[in-house]
Amino acid sequence: MLPVSQGLEGVVAAETAISMVDGERGELIIRGYPVEELAPNATFEQTVEILGVAEFLNAERELPNIAYEVLRAAAEHKDDSMDALRAAAGVSGAPLTMFPTIVAAYSRLLHDRDPIAPRKDLGHAANYLYMLDGQMPSVERVRGLETYLNTVVDHGLNASTFTARVITSTGSDVVSAIVGAVGALKGPLHGGAPGPALDMVFEIGDASRAEEVLRRKIEAGERLMGFGHRVYKVRDPRADVLAAAAERLLGGNPLYDLAKSVERTAIRLLEEYKPGRRLQTNVEFYTALLLHGLGLETPLFTPTFAISRVAGWIAHCMEQKKTGRLIRPQSVYVGPRGLKWDATRAAASRIH
Amino acid sequence: MLPVSQGLEGVVAAETAISMVDGERGELIIRGYPVEELAPNATFEQTVEILGVAEFLNAERELPNIAYEVLRAAAEHKDDSMDALRAAAGVSGAPLTMFPTIVAAYSRLLHDRDPIAPRKDLGHAANYLYMLDGQMPSVERVRGLETYLNTVVDHGLNASTFTARVITSTGSDVVSAIVGAVGALKGPLHGGAPGPALDMVFEIGDASRAEEVLRRKIEAGERLMGFGHRVYKVRDPRADVLAAAAERLLGGNPLYDLAKSVERTAIRLLEEYKPGRRLQTNVEFYTALLLHGLGLETPLFTPTFAISRVAGWIAHCMEQKKTGRLIRPQSVYVGPRGLKWDATRAAASRIH
Repeated sequence: MLPVSQGLEGVVAAETAISMVDGERGELIIRGYPVEELAPNATFEQTVEILGVAEFLNAERELPNIAYEVLRAAAEHKDDSMDALRAAAGVSGAPLTMFPTIVAAYSRLLHDRDPIAPRKDLGHAANYLYMLDGQMPSVERVRGLETYLNTVVDHGLNASTFTARVITSTGSDVVSAIVGAVGALKGPLHGGAPGPALDMVFEIGDASRAEEVLRRKIEAGERLMGFGHRVYKVRDPRADVLAAAAERLLGGNPLYDLAKSVERTAIRLLEEYKPGRRLQTNVEFYTALLLHGLGLETPLFTPTFAISRVAGWIAHCMEQKKTGRLIRPQSVYVGPRGLKWDATRAAASRIH
Repeated sequence: MLPVSQGLEGVVAAETAISMVDGERGELIIRGYPVEELAPNATFEQTVEILGVAEFLNAERELPNIAYEVLRAAAEHKDDSMDALRAAAGVSGAPLTMFPTIVAAYSRLLHDRDPIAPRKDLGHAANYLYMLDGQMPSVERVRGLETYLNTVVDHGLNASTFTARVITSTGSDVVSAIVGAVGALKGPLHGGAPGPALDMVFEIGDASRAEEVLRRKIEAGERLMGFGHRVYKVRDPRADVLAAAAERLLGGNPLYDLAKSVERTAIRLLEEYKPGRRLQTNVEFYTALLLHGLGLETPLFTPTFAISRVAGWIAHCMEQKKTGRLIRPQSVYVGPRGLKWDATRAAASRIH
């Protein structure tokens, strides 16, 4: 009898040269580069190149007409942004270049505004910001967004990346793998909750109230959104990179100062109430602050995550393809056996 | 250092009460019923009920307009049938009831014919056959199709089912899980090759040529399509069920007699050339014969497989949901480390 590992914790399902997560040491390496070395410096295009999938940047940014029709139908029903991204990705041929166009178009359609066509003369990040509001973004905003996109581009064998690898392992195509991965990223246990982290800061409103509100939450047994991570036992290295980017973009801004104050108070109180648990600010907290500072609304947070992570997914698809191996685990049957069919049952309920 | 299991062979990723595959004994149990007990007797609706997901049969069969638009756009490009199914599934809300409508509509659109609207007064299988050609199907054809649908409805933790469970494990929704699973089923290492199995029978053309053609193929090192299975070391129990269904539907038909003759010769020659390997007729061989006998063209084989398997996928989604566990394996990093960013690189290639 084989041991059951329902979450596959501790099971190694792939060798990868794409990224390494060391939760004990608080390290993230992307194709050899520590994330703090790569993220603030590289353009997103360079990160994609480092991931080894630069050829996917040569594809069209403009969507086929049917993708706009899918987005319009989704907007009529006010569908979730990730559902709209998944559906439109399923009828678009080029995920890496088309994801920003899909996400920006859907955001505008939800506000009864026409989509803005992509521009070829802008970089990947700048073009995304441009398609959201039709304004040429500042160098600082582009740099801030690129830092975010580079920071979250890959993170070991998370559930969406694993989904993409399982689908690829059957010999299926990249679009099928990416559409599956978007569906996985949508799940609240994976795509994270950057929205609620910021909501907590807004709820506190003023630094003088931080301690009182946070104490009340902790004593009521509420989880503080934006703190703690399943893998990292020390500070998530991505949080540092995003904190620095947020400071560059937002330093001096009252919301930024408030967020810093909330963070300091939360960490102090978490150590007081849960000593030794080493709960630290996670990537969601500064993602929320940075993306909000870039002018993105909360429903854009997870789709913008996907705009970055799709590059990692594609890199994993290419790597998985090279192994030529089908991923096919076992299950253990715990149901009944040896039941007999009651022939009268079939006759009774048959509809021609 | 944890051992790497790239294909997850021998790793148990789930406890399930849905189906049990015993490859050594040639057994398949579906919720307690041996497949040979359930498949020839139950209606497809009853099988769905036994799987515990009968409520999904209450949904609409008719597609939303946007799904037809997606199928028309796909037909213009002559897209693969599984890609069309995946894309249309992504904009349809009810996979179990809508898959037959999608598959039949796409088949007609590829032949420049208008889709036929589903009928509520027909059973699931009868309605699918009706939507393909607009004719009321005979009881024998309905029984043949139901036997097929029941036979392949679930089969342990295969790659598409596992995909659906991984996506569900993040807390995502059923449509996301099913769309991912369709993408996995499309892969030639999973969805199988029922088309080629029949092509071989057509190529042989006459029983008198079987031995000569098969010997030549085996001696040339070609794999005989329709024989051998990764899991079953003895005869696949599904092959027996489908063989009996094919005989009921097609007995006396020259193609059926030819196929039986090819099967006998192939097994004899495989034992002669590869003694002890116990290569037996697999499910693909009789799937091809039965679905062809039902009047389905080869491109419909894998989508028709999906029309059945979607019930199994949904049952697995529900079961996975109950565990509340994220499926998140580990990877081992085998790439470089400690690279430094060259600042001149960023400056040189930056595009605003």
